[in-house]
Amino acid sequence: MIKNYSKLLLSLVLVLCLAAPVASAKTTVKNDSAKNKSIHVQIVLFDGFDLLDALGPYEVFAAAGMYSGGAVTVELVSAEGKRSVPSGLNGPSLEAKAALDPHLPGMIVVPGASGKPAGNSEDSIPHVLRQTMKTRLPELLKQAFNDKDVTMVTVCGGTLLPAMEGLLKDRHAVTNHLGMPALGALGAIPVEARVVEDGPRFVSGGGVTSGIDTALYLVDRELGPRIANAVEKLFEYEKRGTVWRAEGNEPIDFQASPKAADVK
Amino acid sequence: MIKNYSKLLLSLVLVLCLAAPVASAKTTVKNDSAKNKSIHVQIVLFDGFDLLDALGPYEVFAAAGMYSGGAVTVELVSAEGKRSVPSGLNGPSLEAKAALDPHLPGMIVVPGASGKPAGNSEDSIPHVLRQTMKTRLPELLKQAFNDKDVTMVTVCGGTLLPAMEGLLKDRHAVTNHLGMPALGALGAIPVEARVVEDGPRFVSGGGVTSGIDTALYLVDRELGPRIANAVEKLFEYEKRGTVWRAEGNEPIDFQASPKAADVK
Repeated sequence: MIKNYSKLLLSLVLVLCLAAPVASAKTTVKNDSAKNKSIHVQIVLFDGFDLLDALGPYEVFAAAGMYSGGAVTVELVSAEGKRSVPSGLNGPSLEAKAALDPHLPGMIVVPGASGKPAGNSEDSIPHVLRQTMKTRLPELLKQAFNDKDVTMVTVCGGTLLPAMEGLLKDRHAVTNHLGMPALGALGAIPVEARVVEDGPRFVSGGGVTSGIDTALYLVDRELGPRIANAVEKLFEYEKRGTVWRAEGNEPIDFQASPKAADVK
Repeated sequence: MIKNYSKLLLSLVLVLCLAAPVASAKTTVKNDSAKNKSIHVQIVLFDGFDLLDALGPYEVFAAAGMYSGGAVTVELVSAEGKRSVPSGLNGPSLEAKAALDPHLPGMIVVPGASGKPAGNSEDSIPHVLRQTMKTRLPELLKQAFNDKDVTMVTVCGGTLLPAMEGLLKDRHAVTNHLGMPALGALGAIPVEARVVEDGPRFVSGGGVTSGIDTALYLVDRELGPRIANAVEKLFEYEKRGTVWRAEGNEPIDFQASPKAADVK
């Protein structure tokens, strides 16, 4: 029986080994702009955070680190420092390893909350976000938004936190579709896209799984398309949606000017 | 300043509340077959497990539980019982709340490992899987596969664990594309699809993000399409790929019989 396992495992190892040289061969082509670049990503946990909002980007950045030989490092942090942080809807906790440093060069990812999408109960998203606004996090986010060495990344309801702090006035952003009216009411300019790049230093993603697309875009932007593509293949995922930026031609808004459709 | 927050928060809450009645109205249409049905899902953690493999399905089932008023419950378990289980590549730990019960009616989800996709180092996937085969997990999986009240669900490299135990002989299954040759070598019939249903009691998913599609399919199958659709909308995700089953017409294999293309 043991012998049988060994054989099977050997074939498994051999088969997996065959896959490696293909990837290695490709890395001999140099990407000078990205070479020696190193990016640190802090992912911010708070009580009631959404698991996938946080861990989708976490795993994309971790895999990008693996494929780039360590050009990306990623850690879980919290406003309060090292502690166990419970996710929403009585979900599992994750250990924040350090305090969020708003001035550490790199990226800061803010996930949304998980909970009932409406209402005012303790397990509702509005309640969780309101509680989070009472912590040190909003002040730290403010410092980070003002630091030119930091790229701010928000996912899903995570976009509402800086918006509630007044940091997104007149800035283009996206959040979960359920939160889009609130995002507009808070002074931001809501854009219906899966990923929105307001500028190089502020990128937001829509609902939950958009965090994967957001992180893949940032890996592409910072380390190039070959690393992003390697992560996509490993995860059997393809980045979805055009990353919206206020650039290039602007499409005619047919709803705003109904007569536009008749113009030649 | 405080007053300002209260106003913004009030508008946020109001806006989110507006979204709720639409969903409630829909639930008045009855789905008798799914009514009063309750499904318990155990998600199995082991040292070196992949975060997204485990938490993609976790979050889909948790949201399905939320939208169905508790018709789905989900918990993290381990072969060894309640303990903190480290994910792969030095990732964060998750707390398993209980011991895996292979005879508990419902579903058991087995995620894959995260690590280097090839080689034999301590942080390689083959090594992590080999270590896992030395634990109690394979024996528990065997009992679960033999229990008619249990539906087995494997994601990504998680399909290789029962395969290595010899439980997938001649059964249709999928794993991460990197592991497909190994899956075949272990006696299973590898099928290139995102989700493969060998029978009602064994469903497997491909690489990492396929776990989300696998869980959405099972929510649809067990609780109906309206709950699955609600989860999709919340997560801003659409289930991808036809769920493969050995049913209906079989497509002509043009590679196996090159002359088939010329047959009228």
